[in-house]
Amino acid sequence: MIRDLWLVGIGTGSPGHVTLEGVQALREAAAILLPRKSGKDDLAHLRHRILEAAGATARVIPFDYPVRDESLPYQARVAAWHDEIAHRWQAALRDAPDGPVALLVWGDPSLYDSTMRIAKRLDPRPRLRVVPGITAIQALTAAHAIPLNTVNGPVTITTGRRLHDGGWPAGADTLVVMLDAECRFSDLEPEGLHIWWGAYLGSEDQILRSGRVEDVAEDIAGTRRAARERHGWIMDTYLLRRLR
Amino acid sequence: MIRDLWLVGIGTGSPGHVTLEGVQALREAAAILLPRKSGKDDLAHLRHRILEAAGATARVIPFDYPVRDESLPYQARVAAWHDEIAHRWQAALRDAPDGPVALLVWGDPSLYDSTMRIAKRLDPRPRLRVVPGITAIQALTAAHAIPLNTVNGPVTITTGRRLHDGGWPAGADTLVVMLDAECRFSDLEPEGLHIWWGAYLGSEDQILRSGRVEDVAEDIAGTRRAARERHGWIMDTYLLRRLR
Ligand SMILES: C[S@@+](CC[C@H](N)C(=O)[O-])C[C@H]1O[C@@H](n2cnc3c(N)ncnc32)[C@H](O)[C@@H]1O
Ligand SMILES: C[S@@+](CC[C@H](N)C(=O)[O-])C[C@H]1O[C@@H](n2cnc3c(N)ncnc32)[C@H](O)[C@@H]1O
Repeated sequence: MIRDLWLVGIGTGSPGHVTLEGVQALREAAAILLPRKSGKDDLAHLRHRILEAAGATARVIPFDYPVRDESLPYQARVAAWHDEIAHRWQAALRDAPDGPVALLVWGDPSLYDSTMRIAKRLDPRPRLRVVPGITAIQALTAAHAIPLNTVNGPVTITTGRRLHDGGWPAGADTLVVMLDAECRFSDLEPEGLHIWWGAYLGSEDQILRSGRVEDVAEDIAGTRRAARERHGWIMDTYLLRRLR
Repeated sequence: MIRDLWLVGIGTGSPGHVTLEGVQALREAAAILLPRKSGKDDLAHLRHRILEAAGATARVIPFDYPVRDESLPYQARVAAWHDEIAHRWQAALRDAPDGPVALLVWGDPSLYDSTMRIAKRLDPRPRLRVVPGITAIQALTAAHAIPLNTVNGPVTITTGRRLHDGGWPAGADTLVVMLDAECRFSDLEPEGLHIWWGAYLGSEDQILRSGRVEDVAEDIAGTRRAARERHGWIMDTYLLRRLR
């Protein structure tokens, strides 16, 4: 039974992204739930570096992510997958020491992340504490040293899929795109469109590109492809704005 | 002459929001530029606590914010104000020790903050380094323990003024409103509208409210008024979503 579950945002690739509150939480936790394997060894390595730097002495309790049932339709598949993860957490923690359980969450736990939704499936429901963390969006604007918004302008955050399905959102001024494996910025009318792109943000492998979409789209697509092959995985995000 | 200017995001009210990278930057800086007075003594106090906790030994160099020239039209007034601030930084730093100069920026330096735009007015232009910090948006979602987005849904960030002028933005799913001194959520059609509101987020004075706008709008407006009077200032932000 998990009484207290702490979701600790760890930022997006730099151990320096962790906040003092995050460090403290990792130190005070009695147990830390860690995925056993992700196919992304560098990320597992980063998690261990973070725990070490924090001086965390909690028992580390591994769990395996289940495989998604591809025979189910999308919504049902995700729901079943979340149920199964919650189930595995509960099983893994059966003999855990008493006290708060911490989970390391990539970036900020509130942004395009399912951990909170999985936690709500636990029975009985634990008390949830969320420790905010630096998001990929902030790592992007910091790396490029640019403001997120125009002066008092709005900002829209969306996904590659939505950009593909719906095009440029009505009324958007600054658009940030996450979860895009297909360089969907290439679908847009390039006239006046500028992009600030970043991959592996925060980490030593960080790659940055920026410029008019017309000028840099091909370079980004090629760079992305090559980096993805080299690493076996990629995480990238970008900001778009029409400059007049 | 400022060769290196570091904008260090310090989060929004909790010394625990500062990241390890932020701590390190404050330690390595040769000088730290601090506004002398803000009329918000608690915030000055927080800045000093952060510097102390970081173990910063840099020379602290104070500067005074100029007064805005209210006779100018808005754009010109802001431009003149930014020019004057840049000028004062340069003057204040005339005898500063060699090495990087750090500025503590509320929240994240990229979000509704003019520091980066002021820095670009310095002549010669310094090398800019941006250290991301926890934003009020993240402090809000963490305090309420809610996701920012619906599943794969978009998020729009805007200002109170824009919400007032333009109403609910077309296509918005989750709306985050900042810089709203007028509880503009009350202008919206309340049918199905939910709000998660927070003031003094991250600090010991944090206040949270949530519920259907119909049910909580009055309470929020009254709570806000009373808190503002008590503290002499208020910072608040909120998230809106229509639940069906
Ligand atoms: C499932 S979402 C998680 C977002 C995370 N919670 C956050 O706060 O950034 C994953 C997406 O975030 C973005 N992302 C995360 N880490 C990144 C990084 N280090 N560099 C670039 N993009 C990143 C990518 O767009 C990726 O598709
Ligand atoms: C000039 S903007 C600066 C935002 C800041 N750079 C950030 O990253 O959060 C100020 C606005 O941020 C929000 N804000 C900042 N700190 C806050 C806090 N502690 N609690 C609630 N809202 C806050 C309010 O909406 C306020 O009007």
